Amino acid sequence: MTPDNTPNRQRVAYFNGKIMPESNVRVSFRDRGFTYGDAVFDMTRTFGHRIFKLEEHIDRFYNSLKYVQIDPGMNPDEMIDLTKQVVEQNLKLIGPDEDYWVGQRVSRGVDLVGGDMWETDGGPSVIIECKPLPLAARARLYRDGIDVRIPSVRRVPPDSVSPRAKSHNYLNLIMGDLEVKSQDPESWALLLDNRGFLAEGIGSNIFTIKSGTLYTPRPQYVLGGISRETTIELAEELDVEVVEKDIDQFDAYTADEVFLTSTSLCICGVRSVQGNTIADGSVPGPITKALQDAYVDLVNYDWVSQYLMRLED
Amino acid sequence: MTPDNTPNRQRVAYFNGKIMPESNVRVSFRDRGFTYGDAVFDMTRTFGHRIFKLEEHIDRFYNSLKYVQIDPGMNPDEMIDLTKQVVEQNLKLIGPDEDYWVGQRVSRGVDLVGGDMWETDGGPSVIIECKPLPLAARARLYRDGIDVRIPSVRRVPPDSVSPRAKSHNYLNLIMGDLEVKSQDPESWALLLDNRGFLAEGIGSNIFTIKSGTLYTPRPQYVLGGISRETTIELAEELDVEVVEKDIDQFDAYTADEVFLTSTSLCICGVRSVQGNTIADGSVPGPITKALQDAYVDLVNYDWVSQYLMRLED
Amino acid sequence: MTPDNTPNRQRVAYFNGKIMPESNVRVSFRDRGFTYGDAVFDMTRTFGHRIFKLEEHIDRFYNSLKYVQIDPGMNPDEMIDLTKQVVEQNLKLIGPDEDYWVGQRVSRGVDLVGGDMWETDGGPSVIIECKPLPLAARARLYRDGIDVRIPSVRRVPPDSVSPRAKSHNYLNLIMGDLEVKSQDPESWALLLDNRGFLAEGIGSNIFTIKSGTLYTPRPQYVLGGISRETTIELAEELDVEVVEKDIDQFDAYTADEVFLTSTSLCICGVRSVQGNTIADGSVPGPITKALQDAYVDLVNYDWVSQYLMRLED
Amino acid sequence: MTPDNTPNRQRVAYFNGKIMPESNVRVSFRDRGFTYGDAVFDMTRTFGHRIFKLEEHIDRFYNSLKYVQIDPGMNPDEMIDLTKQVVEQNLKLIGPDEDYWVGQRVSRGVDLVGGDMWETDGGPSVIIECKPLPLAARARLYRDGIDVRIPSVRRVPPDSVSPRAKSHNYLNLIMGDLEVKSQDPESWALLLDNRGFLAEGIGSNIFTIKSGTLYTPRPQYVLGGISRETTIELAEELDVEVVEKDIDQFDAYTADEVFLTSTSLCICGVRSVQGNTIADGSVPGPITKALQDAYVDLVNYDWVSQYLMRLED
Amino acid sequence: MTPDNTPNRQRVAYFNGKIMPESNVRVSFRDRGFTYGDAVFDMTRTFGHRIFKLEEHIDRFYNSLKYVQIDPGMNPDEMIDLTKQVVEQNLKLIGPDEDYWVGQRVSRGVDLVGGDMWETDGGPSVIIECKPLPLAARARLYRDGIDVRIPSVRRVPPDSVSPRAKSHNYLNLIMGDLEVKSQDPESWALLLDNRGFLAEGIGSNIFTIKSGTLYTPRPQYVLGGISRETTIELAEELDVEVVEKDIDQFDAYTADEVFLTSTSLCICGVRSVQGNTIADGSVPGPITKALQDAYVDLVNYDWVSQYLMRLED
Amino acid sequence: MTPDNTPNRQRVAYFNGKIMPESNVRVSFRDRGFTYGDAVFDMTRTFGHRIFKLEEHIDRFYNSLKYVQIDPGMNPDEMIDLTKQVVEQNLKLIGPDEDYWVGQRVSRGVDLVGGDMWETDGGPSVIIECKPLPLAARARLYRDGIDVRIPSVRRVPPDSVSPRAKSHNYLNLIMGDLEVKSQDPESWALLLDNRGFLAEGIGSNIFTIKSGTLYTPRPQYVLGGISRETTIELAEELDVEVVEKDIDQFDAYTADEVFLTSTSLCICGVRSVQGNTIADGSVPGPITKALQDAYVDLVNYDWVSQYLMRLED
Repeated sequence: MTPDNTPNRQRVAYFNGKIMPESNVRVSFRDRGFTYGDAVFDMTRTFGHRIFKLEEHIDRFYNSLKYVQIDPGMNPDEMIDLTKQVVEQNLKLIGPDEDYWVGQRVSRGVDLVGGDMWETDGGPSVIIECKPLPLAARARLYRDGIDVRIPSVRRVPPDSVSPRAKSHNYLNLIMGDLEVKSQDPESWALLLDNRGFLAEGIGSNIFTIKSGTLYTPRPQYVLGGISRETTIELAEELDVEVVEKDIDQFDAYTADEVFLTSTSLCICGVRSVQGNTIADGSVPGPITKALQDAYVDLVNYDWVSQYLMRLED
Repeated sequence: MTPDNTPNRQRVAYFNGKIMPESNVRVSFRDRGFTYGDAVFDMTRTFGHRIFKLEEHIDRFYNSLKYVQIDPGMNPDEMIDLTKQVVEQNLKLIGPDEDYWVGQRVSRGVDLVGGDMWETDGGPSVIIECKPLPLAARARLYRDGIDVRIPSVRRVPPDSVSPRAKSHNYLNLIMGDLEVKSQDPESWALLLDNRGFLAEGIGSNIFTIKSGTLYTPRPQYVLGGISRETTIELAEELDVEVVEKDIDQFDAYTADEVFLTSTSLCICGVRSVQGNTIADGSVPGPITKALQDAYVDLVNYDWVSQYLMRLED
Repeated sequence: MTPDNTPNRQRVAYFNGKIMPESNVRVSFRDRGFTYGDAVFDMTRTFGHRIFKLEEHIDRFYNSLKYVQIDPGMNPDEMIDLTKQVVEQNLKLIGPDEDYWVGQRVSRGVDLVGGDMWETDGGPSVIIECKPLPLAARARLYRDGIDVRIPSVRRVPPDSVSPRAKSHNYLNLIMGDLEVKSQDPESWALLLDNRGFLAEGIGSNIFTIKSGTLYTPRPQYVLGGISRETTIELAEELDVEVVEKDIDQFDAYTADEVFLTSTSLCICGVRSVQGNTIADGSVPGPITKALQDAYVDLVNYDWVSQYLMRLED
Repeated sequence: MTPDNTPNRQRVAYFNGKIMPESNVRVSFRDRGFTYGDAVFDMTRTFGHRIFKLEEHIDRFYNSLKYVQIDPGMNPDEMIDLTKQVVEQNLKLIGPDEDYWVGQRVSRGVDLVGGDMWETDGGPSVIIECKPLPLAARARLYRDGIDVRIPSVRRVPPDSVSPRAKSHNYLNLIMGDLEVKSQDPESWALLLDNRGFLAEGIGSNIFTIKSGTLYTPRPQYVLGGISRETTIELAEELDVEVVEKDIDQFDAYTADEVFLTSTSLCICGVRSVQGNTIADGSVPGPITKALQDAYVDLVNYDWVSQYLMRLED
Repeated sequence: MTPDNTPNRQRVAYFNGKIMPESNVRVSFRDRGFTYGDAVFDMTRTFGHRIFKLEEHIDRFYNSLKYVQIDPGMNPDEMIDLTKQVVEQNLKLIGPDEDYWVGQRVSRGVDLVGGDMWETDGGPSVIIECKPLPLAARARLYRDGIDVRIPSVRRVPPDSVSPRAKSHNYLNLIMGDLEVKSQDPESWALLLDNRGFLAEGIGSNIFTIKSGTLYTPRPQYVLGGISRETTIELAEELDVEVVEKDIDQFDAYTADEVFLTSTSLCICGVRSVQGNTIADGSVPGPITKALQDAYVDLVNYDWVSQYLMRLED
Repeated sequence: MTPDNTPNRQRVAYFNGKIMPESNVRVSFRDRGFTYGDAVFDMTRTFGHRIFKLEEHIDRFYNSLKYVQIDPGMNPDEMIDLTKQVVEQNLKLIGPDEDYWVGQRVSRGVDLVGGDMWETDGGPSVIIECKPLPLAARARLYRDGIDVRIPSVRRVPPDSVSPRAKSHNYLNLIMGDLEVKSQDPESWALLLDNRGFLAEGIGSNIFTIKSGTLYTPRPQYVLGGISRETTIELAEELDVEVVEKDIDQFDAYTADEVFLTSTSLCICGVRSVQGNTIADGSVPGPITKALQDAYVDLVNYDWVSQYLMRLED
């Protein structure tokens, strides 16, 4: 893959007070975000160069910050404003049918050498960044469907660290992903929660459909994605009942349709779960399709075509 | 606290092929060690400027690397050699009665922008570093004993992420520490495992003593510290029986002696557990003292005095 | 504190068939309520000298009795009638702005010496009692808010003993309370259930409020307090949605408002949970305040002022 | 059953500073031992009128006291001395072939009316008592063996309240006993721990024997009875290997021999577990018999005959 | 009991392509349904010789097949048609007031000798069968009520094998049944799920009624019986609220009414649970009776009388 | 694969009193072994046509029978004698370098139609059988090593059904095997226990080796294979320490050697666990090799060569 950060087209990012070229955004190796993953982040995307539900993402971001007790040193409005500036400056670097992931990250700061545990040398590290969505790499998923695999490791339980805070501690999800990728590099991992019910993948939520009802795991065990919430709202507008419940493998294997949601995917059909083909294996199923269409209408941008047009690349 | 990294006395560290001033060791904000805590590390210390059990630490480090499937791009001997070089260059910056923490860190590398999940742009990030031990800050503990507090959050269970790999995912331990520090800033957190037995603190292992026998949690639920292992070996040399078992709060509250071990602490007596005074509250108890003495003999350096002399600072 | 049971103002209580001075109500040291906590009780309060929801409390009391299979030897109507008599006789001992806790207790009776396990010597021990509410001691909570702390011990799980029966076995709750009181004598303990979700304190239920919705733990894991039920009914009358769900620490820390309910507290705002300030830390929040007002209306007595007036004492 | 506390033969007990007739030992209905089971106790027995291992029992008692943080207001030596006095004064009331249970109980004291939670009105309540062993009622068990039944309720887990402290909270054990007694009034309940392994009955420990090795549950999940410890010591003297392990129902059903130990029973053979006959159903099996004989030797009193002679009563 | 398969009245069954006398339906001892229980089945009944909800049962059956990944080699319509043929041919063998259980079974087939694990020698084994309902044996239950007992073994958890697939693996349920039958041969076992809440018996679902609301366990932990679903639908038609929730023993012991549903029982009142009499112990309670009546109306056949008339047999 | 049951070379088996051609051994479709998997079995093998440890297998078999409370209607000596007869009659059907699996199966019998639950029509079904070992199919494993994969489903916990009884309920193991086979048809499944530690595969036990010590899961969570026990005995003879402990994925991934044992495999090296190569991926490792050699010596037959010679087939 050709790197896209050629000097004259370099993206910028906000870092501790200034917007600067990305290559200058480097954190101390003593930054607690690096040494301990002691940081939180959030991530939305643009649709046709417009940022999606930025306020909702920032609201969720400040919940994550409150949970880990990190003070970012600015209020939500300032964070929103800076995000818009970063996006604005970067938009010229991508084509009209490309879009960005747009994210904010705050770590607790840099450990004070010689201090005792948790003393920091200065304030938090704050970063606001963009990066192009991997549209071509994922185009295939919209045609073929996602093959979901369930690793043996279980999602970290809520009484250890809440999955509802979007933190820099992803090793549990990574271990699960490594398991399934070693089997099928194209598959996506979806972890079970500590009780054995379906939870979530790396940044993705799962929905199953049976007899016209939409099901998704209870919010205590997953990061409540904005795309998940958007999907629930769209379903309600389409008069499709949505139920949050404990979903087991029996539910998944016998579902009529299954799909994943995530910031980048929005809604993408699942072809198989742990090697079991869902229905006849074609995606998207009818309700999934209706939800995708409603999502396209909501954002006023045909992101499905944005992915699929790259099949010809 | 006065920062100790004045320009003319700046420590050096190894970073991806070169030994350089620490202030130059900065990782990309897209380094997976930063964004996901997708990295492992290990940490030993010097005693009288001699590195302690470096081979054992590097051996444990390569087990952590193997668990998370990161290839550091060098073999253990090279890692040992580079570590010695870094320490050698830094020793001149500390006084004769000061010592260093000595650590190695390897992250999976920098995320490839535009690539799909887990593609990296180049190899792993490798860092080898020193930092002065917080001797003064902890001197008090050797006189007064540690007040251990048990937070409500439970240690991440082994089937989510193994506590036996020393990774950059510390948020679970941090959440526990924040709980107890909000109550008593001088206390040390010790988390229960997912079943409710005593597990470990941030980088520390616990031992209880009852009727002349030494107990410590079973290795499945804790990071098997080198100091923990050293203590077990010393106890056996002193004919003190050591039993690895599930230790509950009843054991802790009714123990004759309790102590913590860690790379920096070696062995340090505990005064109370969750507000319950251990025995008469004086530290170290007789067996703890005997083990400290044996530890001093083993490393041929009086690290207890090294701490206590700083009470006069 | 000055003892209030001076001879000429002694309260009376019902004990095994007679109403008598409290100082005469003494149970055999072989009473199973003493030796095993083999007894159940219930407790309501008066508002302006009127007993609150006595029938509901007695109904709950007989459920507890049925669960532990103790036959009190009288029916609910007799229990209600005796309770009213005891309260009537005691009311003259308190001032017009004071109120009583009003409780019933039944133990399985006195162990038969020389008999085999569980044989009793005579019938159950039945007690009906009043005691003045600790209004002054708790006045501060209505001004400052309650500091809730979460101990490390977990509430006894429902498949060991149901928390829904109000029994004389409080050691689990006491151990939790001792943990948090050792840290902060003014704090109130709230235990997690065996899965790690918020459960209950000693006689208190918790509610969180987020985006206008009221949440409280599912009834399987807590004693369903009458005050909890009353609050739910009042919320519904105020068109505030109430959801029973598993509440985790993320929910608590990021809540807009948190409050406790109990027989004596009715509804009292929470200032912090485990050291995390709720919103801006002032109590009561707007929905909490609306519920308190509705509660005052319901009982036709301003119990909030009854507490707060004692701040000047 | 004829009551044995006829006026002219009344036993005495120690109560808060004085030895007095038992009928005078009555605790306030506000004693926390009554209202909350907030008390601990211990219990040994006499063999031929000699108290068995009183020091060990008092040592265990003070561990229980420390766990629940109750200060009895006297030291172990005083407790031992008072116990001996109480026994001495009561021995004349029983025949030469009868024996006593001998126990100590300490509650946290009487709740202070008008105080806030956990304030007490005066010091702890201390009781030292004797009562005749139910020799006749249990004689049959030594001839026929005990029918052990496993109720559905699980023993309270160690992270709620430790089973290792002998407290006045027996409701969990009582609920289990009620379950099995409703099925077979002659059976003895043995509860599973929270993981599903055999734990303990009301005051009794279980041992299984397979291929010459003795097994008993791990100490984290049971009250470590003095009789259990004595049995382990006797087995070791007889060169019978003893292993503490998690015992499941498969182990129990396929055992060669099973027996219970308790203060009163010492060692008594089990005929069946949950309706499954152990081996050929005759008791005691050969190793059980050898251990009983060794126990008789140890205490220099034939307690087996003491039970069996009452079959003729 | 007189065997009912006299030669000239022999029932027929479908077996791998043909309808034949039952005595010819014998599977190889290497059939995986025999060696591993590697098979699924479903079972409905006739009412007045009419098959009840055959389509719903076949739909559920194909879900079970999909879960265990067995292809029956025919589609649901063929399965329905064959079932009707088998019933048709057998109806002449029973009297007008008798009825049949009607079931389908498919195993994965016969293990290939000499092949590696899971290779089969030919296709699946498909059986469609009838057998007379045990009306006389169960008549008593409609007069007296069922005595439900809760064994100590827990239902297999959903993350081991889903209880929602009706498979040939019944050993867990059998072990539970053996426990309770050893205590009371007339009792029915109802197992707790792995968390300790009421789950299901062998082919039966439980409902409790409290204050006019109907409760039944959540579907993740039980086989969702067609009779259970029918009962829920009937309740809704009668304006009785139905709530799926975790039901504990407290709920069961303090319920106003309890009943079981199953294919054969339809709805049958419960007299006691674990020895605790439900209400006054008479069956059916008023809501149970109303549901039975509605069930009779739905199927247009008085199956209650069909049972009760056999009391006179 | 060519079927080996040509008419003139048909194996015989014992079935309910007679030795007969295998094709005649067919069980009723109402046999509880078929409908419920209500049966147990055991399986040994021959080495050079000599039956291996038949007495130990029959002893284990009778433990399984006792656990499920099935009376086989014959004693162990009769079972042994019949087994020898069946083997004797079948040996002539295989070549000198082939060998047999040799097994016994007993189901509870045939359900009585018209009877109530668990009534059987006649006694148990008893089968004794031989079948050729799949030597060629598994030869590759001795050259390449086994690829072990860990499915997401967890082994049934001991408090549901004990894994220590070898029953006809294999659906849990089958579901695990289907998961991993869907990913890699050549891999072998190894399930985690309900706590997340390594348990067992279908008929296989796992051992890991680290720093010269042999580890294998604790016996409560696995079927204690005779090959497992034999391996432990051989290790002790070779002065290799053997430890039964909870083995996690960290242990497996960082092991020096891993191998499986089973009746047919004896001891076979593992190349990878969940995609992680063990050491350098070559098998057998040095200690595994030493144990294989000792196993060959013990049975006086080179079963390793017996497998490997089939690579040339």
